[in-house]
This record gives sequence, structure tokens and C-alpha cells, in this order.
Amino acid sequence: MKEVVYTIKVEFGDCDPAGIVWFPNFFRWIDASSQHFFLECGVPPWREMERTLGVIGTPLVDTRATFVNAASYGDTLRIHTSLTELRGKSFVQHHRVMRGGDLVMQCEEVRVFARRREDGGIAAVPVPPGIRAALG
Amino acid sequence: MKEVVYTIKVEFGDCDPAGIVWFPNFFRWIDASSQHFFLECGVPPWREMERTLGVIGTPLVDTRATFVNAASYGDTLRIHTSLTELRGKSFVQHHRVMRGGDLVMQCEEVRVFARRREDGGIAAVPVPPGIRAALG
Amino acid sequence: MKEVVYTIKVEFGDCDPAGIVWFPNFFRWIDASSQHFFLECGVPPWREMERTLGVIGTPLVDTRATFVNAASYGDTLRIHTSLTELRGKSFVQHHRVMRGGDLVMQCEEVRVFARRREDGGIAAVPVPPGIRAALG
Amino acid sequence: MKEVVYTIKVEFGDCDPAGIVWFPNFFRWIDASSQHFFLECGVPPWREMERTLGVIGTPLVDTRATFVNAASYGDTLRIHTSLTELRGKSFVQHHRVMRGGDLVMQCEEVRVFARRREDGGIAAVPVPPGIRAALG
Repeated sequence: MKEVVYTIKVEFGDCDPAGIVWFPNFFRWIDASSQHFFLECGVPPWREMERTLGVIGTPLVDTRATFVNAASYGDTLRIHTSLTELRGKSFVQHHRVMRGGDLVMQCEEVRVFARRREDGGIAAVPVPPGIRAALG
Repeated sequence: MKEVVYTIKVEFGDCDPAGIVWFPNFFRWIDASSQHFFLECGVPPWREMERTLGVIGTPLVDTRATFVNAASYGDTLRIHTSLTELRGKSFVQHHRVMRGGDLVMQCEEVRVFARRREDGGIAAVPVPPGIRAALG
Repeated sequence: MKEVVYTIKVEFGDCDPAGIVWFPNFFRWIDASSQHFFLECGVPPWREMERTLGVIGTPLVDTRATFVNAASYGDTLRIHTSLTELRGKSFVQHHRVMRGGDLVMQCEEVRVFARRREDGGIAAVPVPPGIRAALG
Repeated sequence: MKEVVYTIKVEFGDCDPAGIVWFPNFFRWIDASSQHFFLECGVPPWREMERTLGVIGTPLVDTRATFVNAASYGDTLRIHTSLTELRGKSFVQHHRVMRGGDLVMQCEEVRVFARRREDGGIAAVPVPPGIRAALG
């Protein structure tokens, strides 16, 4: 199972008045790591996928996260991301956010590949074969 | 069981290139709704709690979220927040994000009341009696 | 000269470890107020403008901001926004962020109406007559 | 004059429905680059400065920014930051955000060193001698 690492540096502005990372920022970084994983597998950026396959992104359907240790500015965090399941229209990614050897938080995500609907909404599409091949 | 509603208006900048709310923003709003709930129950703001009780906030320990419908700019969302469990050191909040009668996403959170540790980290503290009384 | 007021409530997560609003959040709110101004003048949302006129938004070209008083969570801020100049392809907006009678910060912006270019970039377009009429 | 470079990678979630960087994010990165500059000069992080000198950060007083080229996800941006003036209580930083050889935006900032006031607000303090020496 392939694992890709995305590194971030926590900045002052990522932290709240308690002096620790304000938790929505973890989801910001995890979203970046989710997409970084695809790029590292050779999947083109969404703007190209939109032109060729009509895929506009991989919206989140379900997530479960556990926060184990606080982080603060100056910390370097490494997000270990892997694809643990590839279904017909959805996939599961697992992310572990590490500071050195310590687990900071971890998160499991179910996402779908999506296209635009005529009414402005979005709809899930089957995982495109080209992407399936890149991830296999 | 008390339920408090926090209303937000989705802005252009809350949306991503797919034209829908970028999901970390939902956690931003849920965090605001979590704290709004306490204020509505008569719990003072954290800055005051820090002076009187050493409580610096309610960091997240665990969250589970499901995304049902996409939202976009121009939408008015109402977050229905309730406290579903109050334990010794932690509590559970449930949030339903509605657009009119449609569920957009929902989320369950486990949080703790926390104080600063000498080493710069944070530690959970028993739910202060004054807060327990306000929530009862 | 028309002035429109956009109200925001400062949240805990909008503040940094110094306990005051982290300044990029002011630009987030000013961007929302800029667009709120157009909606209040009867200009349709950008998603509709994109379909009818090819206008995808009003990117910022130039801004100048002065920060006078700090703000913190719990504060209610009122952003007074006006259009001070409407040129051929650009316009100037002025924003004053008030907390009660106190000025918190103020900002002047030059923006353009933009369309997508074939190469993925954006280009300024003359202010559409329909918008010019709505603003007049 | 010392110049320090801070590198960032633009992510999908940094972009708005027009597909380009939502401008408040530039200020987020510039704030990080401003602080990165001090760290590179040997100035300790604010949390340490707060303990030793009572300095809680460098709030922004005045900024002027010009946006020249749009950026989008996938872009690598390099922020060239320098200190152009060091006054009694304030200082001026200049930031140029480059994508390869192209200027994306640039910004000049006036900031002060600040301490907490008893009433919860903040106040400017003279530039501490230790910092002045590090920057000299």
C-alpha cells in the first residue's frame, strides 16, 4: 500500500488564543495531503481532469478524526497519507499527522469523484478508469 | 435537551474552484457554533474563564462528520447545536447544518475543557462546577 | 453616495495567540462586504454573471489598509462599504470597520471585473452596462 | 539589506470559484513570511519573547499591496521579504511574491512590536535592543 508524505510548517496564524493549532486548520492540511497523494500517483490536477473527464474534485462524504497531541507554531508536521480502499464511486484515505515520532492527530476520509450537475450541484461519478489504473 | 441555532451566510471566498463550500470551512463554523452554545447557556467567554478558572478553551478530541448536500455562496445555513452528553472531563456536542429543510452536513464532537500546562502543552480538566450548573 | 453595512461577529478561531484578530481575517470580511455591496445594489451573484456576461468576479488590483484598534472574539464589527469611484474597467471601494463608535481598521480597494482567458488566466473587462446602471 | 525567501505551494483550497487564489490567502502567507524573516535573523519565536520581554507579536499597522498576476493551485510561490526600515517602535517590511520570474503581487507593511495591556488590549513598545541587534 502506497504511502505519501506531505510536510507542513505550523505558523503563528494557524494557532488560536490558547496558543495551539485551531483544529479546522488540520482539515485544511489534510485536504492538501489528499490531493498531493493523487498528484504523486500521477493523477493530473483537477483543472485538467475537468476538461478531459468532467471531474471537478473529490468532495468529502464522511470523515472521522481523533486528536491526540496539540501542535503549535514552529512545529513541522508530516502527514502520512494512504489510500486504504477504492470502491465503485468512492474511496477511503487514511491520514496520520506526525511531529517527529509523536502522533498529533489521525483521520479517515471517504470521498467521491464528482462532476457538476446542470442545476449547479454536484454528483458522484464512477472512479474513472485512468485514475483507477494510476492508483493500482 | 437544549438546542441553540447559529446562523451563517456562505460567502464566495468560502467556496473552492468546484464552486462549493470547501469543507474545512464547515469545521470553522461548527467551532463557532460550539462556543456560541456555551455563551447562550450563560457560560462566560474563554478569556474570562482563563482568569477565573484557568480554562483556556474546549479543544476537540474526536469528531465524526457526514456531508449530505453541497452548499455554495449565497446560502444561509443554520447550525443546530446541542449537548448530548456531559462526562467528568469531556462532553459531546451534536451539530446539524441545515439549509431550509435540507440537511447539509452533520457532525458529532467530543471535546474537553483544558488548561495550560507548564511545558506549554494543554491538559484536560474536570468540567468546572459552575459550567456544569449552567449546562444542567 | 450609497453606503452598505455588513455585520460580522468575531469568533475565537479568528484570533491568534496574542488574543486579537489575525489580520488576514479582516480581508476575508472585507471581501465579503465588497460582494454584499453589489448584491444590495441589485447586481446578481457571480455564478449568474458568469453565465450571462462571462464575469467571474471582481479580483483585487490594489489595496491600502490602516489598522487602528485591535479587535477580539465576542466583538461585533460593522463594515461600512461604499463605492467611491467607477472607472472604465475598475472601481474603488472604501471600507470602514467599526466596533460601536470606534474605528478598528479601514481599507481602500481597487478592483476590476474579470473574465476567464483561454489560457486559464483572467483578464479585466469593461464594467458591464447592466452593473453600471445598478450602481448609478 | 538582508532578504529572506519563504516558499509556499498553492493548494486547491486556497482558490475561489474563479479558480484563482482568494486574495486574503496572500496575506496569510505574507504574515508567515514576515515572521520567518525574524526567525532567520535569529530572533526567538513570540512565545519565548512573551516570557522574556513581554512581546506578544508584531501586529500590522499599515499595509499597501498590489496584485499583478493571478496564481492558482499547483503554483509554487517564493516570497522575498526584506526589512527596509527600523524605527523607534515600528518597522517596515517589503514582500515580493514571485512565480518563477513573474511578479504575482507585492506588499509593504508597517508593523510594531506589541505587549499586552492590562485591559486586554495591546500597545506598541520600543523595538527591544536584542531584536535591534539581531536585525542590524
